[in-house]
Amino acid sequence: MRRRAGIAQDELRRVNLAALLSRVHVRGATSRAVLTAELGLNRSTIGDLVGHLESLGLVTESSSAAGGRSGRPSLTVTPRCDVAVLAIALEVDRIIAAVVGLGGVELARGARPHQRGEHDVEHVIESVAQLAHQVLEAAEVATCLGAGVSVPGAVRAADGMVRFAPNLGWNNEPFAGRLSERLALPVAVGNDANLGALAEHLRGAAVGVDDVAYVTGSVGIGGGFLTAGAELHGFEGYAGEVGHLLVDSNGDECRCGAFGCWETKVGENHLLTGAGRLPGGGPEAVAEVIEAATAGDGKASASLDAVATWTGVGLRNIVNLFNPEMIVLGGVLARAWTARPGLVDAGMARGALIAPRESVTLRVAALGEDSPLLGAAELAFAPLVADPLLLERGVLPAAR
Amino acid sequence: MRRRAGIAQDELRRVNLAALLSRVHVRGATSRAVLTAELGLNRSTIGDLVGHLESLGLVTESSSAAGGRSGRPSLTVTPRCDVAVLAIALEVDRIIAAVVGLGGVELARGARPHQRGEHDVEHVIESVAQLAHQVLEAAEVATCLGAGVSVPGAVRAADGMVRFAPNLGWNNEPFAGRLSERLALPVAVGNDANLGALAEHLRGAAVGVDDVAYVTGSVGIGGGFLTAGAELHGFEGYAGEVGHLLVDSNGDECRCGAFGCWETKVGENHLLTGAGRLPGGGPEAVAEVIEAATAGDGKASASLDAVATWTGVGLRNIVNLFNPEMIVLGGVLARAWTARPGLVDAGMARGALIAPRESVTLRVAALGEDSPLLGAAELAFAPLVADPLLLERGVLPAAR
Repeated sequence: MRRRAGIAQDELRRVNLAALLSRVHVRGATSRAVLTAELGLNRSTIGDLVGHLESLGLVTESSSAAGGRSGRPSLTVTPRCDVAVLAIALEVDRIIAAVVGLGGVELARGARPHQRGEHDVEHVIESVAQLAHQVLEAAEVATCLGAGVSVPGAVRAADGMVRFAPNLGWNNEPFAGRLSERLALPVAVGNDANLGALAEHLRGAAVGVDDVAYVTGSVGIGGGFLTAGAELHGFEGYAGEVGHLLVDSNGDECRCGAFGCWETKVGENHLLTGAGRLPGGGPEAVAEVIEAATAGDGKASASLDAVATWTGVGLRNIVNLFNPEMIVLGGVLARAWTARPGLVDAGMARGALIAPRESVTLRVAALGEDSPLLGAAELAFAPLVADPLLLERGVLPAAR
Repeated sequence: MRRRAGIAQDELRRVNLAALLSRVHVRGATSRAVLTAELGLNRSTIGDLVGHLESLGLVTESSSAAGGRSGRPSLTVTPRCDVAVLAIALEVDRIIAAVVGLGGVELARGARPHQRGEHDVEHVIESVAQLAHQVLEAAEVATCLGAGVSVPGAVRAADGMVRFAPNLGWNNEPFAGRLSERLALPVAVGNDANLGALAEHLRGAAVGVDDVAYVTGSVGIGGGFLTAGAELHGFEGYAGEVGHLLVDSNGDECRCGAFGCWETKVGENHLLTGAGRLPGGGPEAVAEVIEAATAGDGKASASLDAVATWTGVGLRNIVNLFNPEMIVLGGVLARAWTARPGLVDAGMARGALIAPRESVTLRVAALGEDSPLLGAAELAFAPLVADPLLLERGVLPAAR
């Protein structure tokens, strides 16, 4: 029973244009017949809406010679991939930029390393701007609607302020506003795991699944959730910080200042040091430890076992709190689960309640390391997809 | 970016009728001027919708002599409280039944004790039926739309199957279906804490707050959440089981079979036995311990301190995962926080991340022990409020 406004007659078109555009954006080229069935609108309304989106330069329509069962040619609605956004992923050791067209088509991509010492905001903004210029040149798109940026940290939803990004050393950086000025484009910023969850839901392992927990591990552990098909943001955008769930009352101090956080038990470096190796080696070093464990290295094996078991302990809490239909695992957690599924399941089973545990499915992230980048593209598309008429009102850059 | 259907012309009326009815149901009598402003519809549409709801027997309209600023009489739309539902709360030691009219008006109430040994489903159904008869007689309503039942356990949303209710000793009881047969009314069943959260959001401490965590403690600890104004149910309805969050790796075994669950540290009986008293005394015994602690009883004070601290530890996890704007506390947790706010805050502060902790507010449940009962009423009203035209289609019992 949500408080909602009514829908006035002139808003009906907006709502239906949005429903249609979001459908073809997520599915790609779609026949009118499917759109009619899925949107629950009659054919003439669909025809009218498609015409409107075509006039806005957002879709094209073509008739396939094959024809439908009726013998009439089947009309297919295709999103125009030259209407694009810039997607940026700030990672700890590199920046990735991509141009992504409507329909989720990647048109160009570039990356550059940035090491510690290059993390100050000025430097990052300059690097992003250069990369952006480079990929936009390469993509030659008609329109760049804006940029979406994935940041490994807590981002205030209202204004894209990065409140806390320990791996970048950022505190309270008004990043969205400053990058927007530099790029002369609208910029939206989101937490990497929240964006990863969105991408996996729209285009990855959790398509069609409405209650999703996405949990991914590198140095830290990030989480993003969808509940009843909607992204979980919380009051100001900080929801989903699963890395700081308490899992071990006897555990070590975490970077956040608390003790016993999940990420102190299952982060990459915990796996590496447990196996007698140096921290900081990243995914490649993680892969080596898992290989060594599989080959019989006792120390690597013990460390992997511990990480798998603690992975299960953290998942127990997620299962009890969220009753997800699917948990999508990324990074070191995906690797630990793939290598030691029994230990993860056992750790989870020991604590999760029976009813929510029975129905949950675990999956490896289908988009791999790209989930946050692709989620950033969706973030940038969100205003247009929610209201295609923004183009008419000149709120978004018009197609050239 | 939720997948949604379009809205056809003939559904627009349904959507707007629902928006209007839900508004007056939650607020009570409301002027047309306020409805026009809040729903974002023009006056003639509002007039038309009000007329339709009047013809369905759901609201009445009256003009106040006082008049508006314009000198015209101000029209007020009032929900008809003789259109009612039956609300039932199954507690461990009693059953409460109430008749609640549109607008949330309580028209009649009754209760009867039921002790262990009277918890078998047959017995409960018979007791509920007798109570229902009694309160419906007393209330003399025009229409009883159906019944909503609050159960202290995990309830499958799809069919009201009670999967697990340890305090009643129920496992996999098809309770909703059987009660519906006995009462010859539609019956919807929900988890007590989820319903409590809903009631506090609509009519209690969290009115106007869209990201709410409701956490209440008696023998067990229950949780219910609203995120972005929507109830959190999870895939099958089991979300929100905060009582089984891991908070102490060195803790005791819980009724659920896991170790270190939150409810083993902060449940009523933990407070009582820590204070050197017998378990099972309920809220009265809890109040006595708190009184004794305030009066200087060392053992009671130590036990209260421990419960307050562990309350904070559990809240840490809720803050990090959900970033709620408000946490509403009920039962023993509310009492512990009221008596020892500093310890609860300190326990929470030691572990919660700064950004989500800064903005969260704690409150005591405004509806007290009635939250689940009033939430059960909302559950029973939900189909009508979501679609008032169900009455025309004869899906709900028509007004007499």
